[in-house]
Amino acid sequence: MPAGIAPLTDAGRRFVELAEKHAAEFAAVADQHDRAGTFPMEHIEALKASGAIAGLVPEELGGVGVDCVHDMAVALSRFGRGDGAISIGLCMHYLMSWTMARRWRAGRAQGRDPDGSLLRAIVEGQAVMGVLNAESGSDNRHPFAEATPVEGGYRVRGKKSFGTMSPAATLFTVRVRIPAGDGEYLTANALIPADAPGLENLENWDALGMRASASHDIRLNDVFVTESAMTPPVPWGTLGHPGMTGGVAAALCLAAPFLGIAEAAHENAVELVKQRGKQPGPTPLREWGPVQGAVAENEVDLASMRGAFHRALELVDEGFARHFPGDPPLEELHETMRESQAAKLIMNETAVKVVDRCLAISGGSGYTAKSPLSRYYRDVRAGAFMSPFGALEAREFIARVALDLPPEG
Amino acid sequence: MPAGIAPLTDAGRRFVELAEKHAAEFAAVADQHDRAGTFPMEHIEALKASGAIAGLVPEELGGVGVDCVHDMAVALSRFGRGDGAISIGLCMHYLMSWTMARRWRAGRAQGRDPDGSLLRAIVEGQAVMGVLNAESGSDNRHPFAEATPVEGGYRVRGKKSFGTMSPAATLFTVRVRIPAGDGEYLTANALIPADAPGLENLENWDALGMRASASHDIRLNDVFVTESAMTPPVPWGTLGHPGMTGGVAAALCLAAPFLGIAEAAHENAVELVKQRGKQPGPTPLREWGPVQGAVAENEVDLASMRGAFHRALELVDEGFARHFPGDPPLEELHETMRESQAAKLIMNETAVKVVDRCLAISGGSGYTAKSPLSRYYRDVRAGAFMSPFGALEAREFIARVALDLPPEG
Amino acid sequence: MPAGIAPLTDAGRRFVELAEKHAAEFAAVADQHDRAGTFPMEHIEALKASGAIAGLVPEELGGVGVDCVHDMAVALSRFGRGDGAISIGLCMHYLMSWTMARRWRAGRAQGRDPDGSLLRAIVEGQAVMGVLNAESGSDNRHPFAEATPVEGGYRVRGKKSFGTMSPAATLFTVRVRIPAGDGEYLTANALIPADAPGLENLENWDALGMRASASHDIRLNDVFVTESAMTPPVPWGTLGHPGMTGGVAAALCLAAPFLGIAEAAHENAVELVKQRGKQPGPTPLREWGPVQGAVAENEVDLASMRGAFHRALELVDEGFARHFPGDPPLEELHETMRESQAAKLIMNETAVKVVDRCLAISGGSGYTAKSPLSRYYRDVRAGAFMSPFGALEAREFIARVALDLPPEG
Amino acid sequence: MPAGIAPLTDAGRRFVELAEKHAAEFAAVADQHDRAGTFPMEHIEALKASGAIAGLVPEELGGVGVDCVHDMAVALSRFGRGDGAISIGLCMHYLMSWTMARRWRAGRAQGRDPDGSLLRAIVEGQAVMGVLNAESGSDNRHPFAEATPVEGGYRVRGKKSFGTMSPAATLFTVRVRIPAGDGEYLTANALIPADAPGLENLENWDALGMRASASHDIRLNDVFVTESAMTPPVPWGTLGHPGMTGGVAAALCLAAPFLGIAEAAHENAVELVKQRGKQPGPTPLREWGPVQGAVAENEVDLASMRGAFHRALELVDEGFARHFPGDPPLEELHETMRESQAAKLIMNETAVKVVDRCLAISGGSGYTAKSPLSRYYRDVRAGAFMSPFGALEAREFIARVALDLPPEG
Repeated sequence: MPAGIAPLTDAGRRFVELAEKHAAEFAAVADQHDRAGTFPMEHIEALKASGAIAGLVPEELGGVGVDCVHDMAVALSRFGRGDGAISIGLCMHYLMSWTMARRWRAGRAQGRDPDGSLLRAIVEGQAVMGVLNAESGSDNRHPFAEATPVEGGYRVRGKKSFGTMSPAATLFTVRVRIPAGDGEYLTANALIPADAPGLENLENWDALGMRASASHDIRLNDVFVTESAMTPPVPWGTLGHPGMTGGVAAALCLAAPFLGIAEAAHENAVELVKQRGKQPGPTPLREWGPVQGAVAENEVDLASMRGAFHRALELVDEGFARHFPGDPPLEELHETMRESQAAKLIMNETAVKVVDRCLAISGGSGYTAKSPLSRYYRDVRAGAFMSPFGALEAREFIARVALDLPPEG
Repeated sequence: MPAGIAPLTDAGRRFVELAEKHAAEFAAVADQHDRAGTFPMEHIEALKASGAIAGLVPEELGGVGVDCVHDMAVALSRFGRGDGAISIGLCMHYLMSWTMARRWRAGRAQGRDPDGSLLRAIVEGQAVMGVLNAESGSDNRHPFAEATPVEGGYRVRGKKSFGTMSPAATLFTVRVRIPAGDGEYLTANALIPADAPGLENLENWDALGMRASASHDIRLNDVFVTESAMTPPVPWGTLGHPGMTGGVAAALCLAAPFLGIAEAAHENAVELVKQRGKQPGPTPLREWGPVQGAVAENEVDLASMRGAFHRALELVDEGFARHFPGDPPLEELHETMRESQAAKLIMNETAVKVVDRCLAISGGSGYTAKSPLSRYYRDVRAGAFMSPFGALEAREFIARVALDLPPEG
Repeated sequence: MPAGIAPLTDAGRRFVELAEKHAAEFAAVADQHDRAGTFPMEHIEALKASGAIAGLVPEELGGVGVDCVHDMAVALSRFGRGDGAISIGLCMHYLMSWTMARRWRAGRAQGRDPDGSLLRAIVEGQAVMGVLNAESGSDNRHPFAEATPVEGGYRVRGKKSFGTMSPAATLFTVRVRIPAGDGEYLTANALIPADAPGLENLENWDALGMRASASHDIRLNDVFVTESAMTPPVPWGTLGHPGMTGGVAAALCLAAPFLGIAEAAHENAVELVKQRGKQPGPTPLREWGPVQGAVAENEVDLASMRGAFHRALELVDEGFARHFPGDPPLEELHETMRESQAAKLIMNETAVKVVDRCLAISGGSGYTAKSPLSRYYRDVRAGAFMSPFGALEAREFIARVALDLPPEG
Repeated sequence: MPAGIAPLTDAGRRFVELAEKHAAEFAAVADQHDRAGTFPMEHIEALKASGAIAGLVPEELGGVGVDCVHDMAVALSRFGRGDGAISIGLCMHYLMSWTMARRWRAGRAQGRDPDGSLLRAIVEGQAVMGVLNAESGSDNRHPFAEATPVEGGYRVRGKKSFGTMSPAATLFTVRVRIPAGDGEYLTANALIPADAPGLENLENWDALGMRASASHDIRLNDVFVTESAMTPPVPWGTLGHPGMTGGVAAALCLAAPFLGIAEAAHENAVELVKQRGKQPGPTPLREWGPVQGAVAENEVDLASMRGAFHRALELVDEGFARHFPGDPPLEELHETMRESQAAKLIMNETAVKVVDRCLAISGGSGYTAKSPLSRYYRDVRAGAFMSPFGALEAREFIARVALDLPPEG
């Protein structure tokens, strides 16, 4: 297999090495958890034990110290080679870690003394981050879960979906809307502990793939949130500046496991070709034109995914670095999001093609449940639904930026 | 939805009407059987009760009387709208029925008095036909199950796979090889009752999709077969004339359910679009450009599938009619197979694209297990593995015919 | 090459035979006219001499008597094999002939005595029909050429483009708008002789391909048109009932030459492969996997084009036959147009892919001007622009019909 | 437009800036030279005047000093935005310059005193490099032009094709075969001045596109070559180590102009959309769903091209840097070539799709000769034929490396 994408930093190299080690463990039990629909909690414990859970926490706070989106995403692609389901959950944790670490670093650079307690809790295995942005029947920009102002904070009521890795998360960031009078709303994110009174995990995830991801619905029954646990609001219907800031990174990180799945599938198919003759003649399968053609298409497609991913990640990191310790302005984030979304589309749609072609190369054996290819085929299709934009919305966003139209409609 | 393909004959119209009625019943329990991996035996009973089980049996023998491949295949596409898994099993039964009925009609046309007892047994609900051609690790042209000549016939030993609808079949046609001396082999098909001593159903089907198809492995432990139950042999490694004769029809019939799946998926997605607004704004989802684009692509793809299917079926029927009561010569069958295989490739690969796009249109809801789209997505991928040529072999066959090379290598 | 689409009627078989004969003549001088940008007027004379110019004129009036769109379109695909440029011009003539012949037949069936003089003039070589629908910067539904009511008729002023085959046409149907007061307009078609005072052929066609089609701009300098030469108007911005009636046939006929081009290109490439070894080794090029792969893709694509084309043509003819001597109602025409447009998209976009793959198969020789492939490559791209809907508009039309939205917006 | 690929070095930035300036001049006369089929010699003079002709010559020798393939290729993509025809010629010159400069730098690093006279001649405008590798009917690995050993050197006889930019080149590297006895051959490259006695430029280039590239056939009538002007030979039928070394860079540089063409086409189409309303309604064209869809696909495709290109270039440079002043070993070059070829396939095939979609977006105006889109459409198709592997051979090479087979067959 052509080299996967290499990390760019020392911390990245350490984190990727850990990710590859864990991925091998993930792979060993992935089918079993997939079949049972169980969440592999043992992996979370292993990540705590190895320190990988703190991959994005600064070294000063005891973490691995990865600070670029590029290397975070590369590690996530490696995790994805082992098991897509746990990896998509880890995306949530690491993205939140990255956001917090970036804020902590910015605070230090600005001479402030930022609070690193949550990051330290991650290092100590006390905190795992979860994300509750999605809702069935809506999109990230239009949450219906509502935070009603009460004495000292808010009461949150609603139902969030795709609570990926919810059994492991200790703390959720939850997208809500806040009434702004006149029937208008604002949107913000609330930080809510998993054991907050009124937070109910419906444990009802049941889907085509990503079956071990525990992406349950979470019901919020008048959960109390303090004022300080709420992010600054933006107009309802938009991602706004904070949403775009996190979103350009999220788009790529959430695509990363699907590169890993495609890489694992292709490796599986290539190994199969190398080992198998073409029955019953003397010609080895790997000398057979149609198989060579399919292998070549996969190689080209993997090159396409890797290239688009790598370049978009570089652009994202370069933009953040240029404005550090501040944030890129909104218009620049729109441009970056255009690149992130284009890369995400390439990765998700191409990953599906690669796995599909692996099934063809397998000659039927990949269709049986005992082949990991059949799991990859189900898991890989989840990519296109990942936030902040699904495949159809992403194209509209890209076109609007390209055509100088307001990108959020 | 644009009109599905219409049947061309009166018998065809009766059969298609029955198929549509049964398909509605299939659909009602398809998810349940898919989840449990159980074979829907109740449908077989219903098909016997309605007479549909005898769709291909001549009217003179009490059947529905369909005599063209076109209308058989159209009915199979309608069955497929309800449940792909049972439909792929029915393909086997109807294809065998068609072969037997064609022989019976040819016998009559030639002034002989052909044996119609098996066809009558189908009418009476006593016979359901199954096919055991495939083997794991080989292809249809290279069976390893071996028929050793013994007193009065053969003893068959081996393991066949993809015994689709095996719980319902009363009689299997089984592809075997026969030693021809000097390490050479011949290939023939043996007719073996499901309750023959030594025939063992391993009941082990477990796959990505088509989970209710009971496509179990079948072990043949020295099963005795009389001389007369064996078809005339051809060189091992080839389909030969009989294989090509049945194969041109089989290719298209085995593709038919996947058209039905794609049609059902598209209808599901279009209904969803019609009913759903694009949350939360006032614009209905169906006025949204990206959804219109995806719907249009699906419509174009369905037109592509239907056109290729319809035209290839006409060419197949035309060839058989022109030579009746004889068979088309081998070289003509190669030309027809080229068209059948091209149509099969179009259907299977396009069906996957259509269902994939339906998932995109569904906006994520199609990925959950409770949506039939998630089942369609798994089932539809089976099409490309159907005999007599998988997708990679089909392309090689087509190219060789086009380039005036011996098509079987 | 797999059989091209066969005509369905005796008249169709005669016409297709003539078309194939003429196509051979077209091919012999196609490159020469393409290079010089000259219109091959000699072909028009030959078509008159053979009677093919009257292919769509009823036999009772002395023509070949083709009366179904299917066979007209099949013949146009055969013409296209010889030279796309002249063929696209012939589409205009035959489509107009078909419309007039259908009206004449309907009149007879209704017991009237319809005027056949123009059809007879075609037989006698006195009339060749042209179409001036298009305008630069607009579409068929929104003509800007304006017919101002004057004593006894109208004065038409404007500039039409894509006056394909304009040097040969003796009579044009010209789409115009008519002021309806309040700034509103109606749309109608005027029948204008090529030698009408004020009709000026700018002889300025200069394009990527179809260089011999003489698709000049035509300026109308206050050309007088009598009341009776104007069709009944429809609201500006719509095709309306007459436009949809002609349009369902036009869509397919205007796609036909591009099937022919793709067929000719594939035949060219296949011949090249058969003749050429793969330099310098002993393996013939046709045994080489990548070439076999490309040939197979082309075969599959041709099957897709032929199937979609054939089936849509059958549906169009079936609809007209069912309502004869009347016309199908508008809503049914929308359904038929959906099928026509889907087939047209398949044909035009697939034809481009086929020719592109022929260039790849040619290994570079096809890129030189002396190879007909380089002409096919330029010509074949014109297909997607053909009226009544370009490729982008067609998808919107199809989606709107599928989603129960008013199809003309 | 999203940012094109940025150069990585200071010298690269200077060279890219020059390239962009020249590209604007190229664009101004590109159509004129394309129509006349004339070579734009004035651009060569301008490149000499600006110093850009010495873009790859080390600063120590008076050049711009670009030393990485990445920045050379990025500059070539910028040239391509102006005119593909001249740019493909410049590829040859710059690739040869890079090879010579790398050898010169390696010599210096190894403490030798390498000859920089040819590089200095480039700076002084005295030398422009050309490449004569190709032959009609063969490929780069199998030259038929033959160098027969004679006193003091060789006499070369044969006909080379695709002598791109031949009117400007002062010195050609010419691939030849040398008899090795027993009917076997070796392959080497000879350095031959354009004015060498017996070198005859047939001035016969005439093709679908790249019409101003003067890619004439060159006949070698017993041209004398000294021993020292011949590179060390490799077995005939292989690129060998030197061919792979140059080839990994050549593959990407020769793909660069086609990225530039696609970028220019997309920019043209986007500008057109921004400026044009959708006639005649009030909705601007850029708000129209189908146009937004096509623009988004182009953006995604450009991201795919840029990413694959950028990453493969980084891998190429990284490999050369790691082994400097030596060369990467052959097996590593095979791995790198796999990545180069995958990127080249992505770029060339995607570039064709982008320009095709621009034609669709243009609504027909792009098909006329006066639109640059019609030129881009012809030019862009040349990419897939570029050496060292055409599109079909490239896939075979990639598959063979991936499957651990000897990559050169």
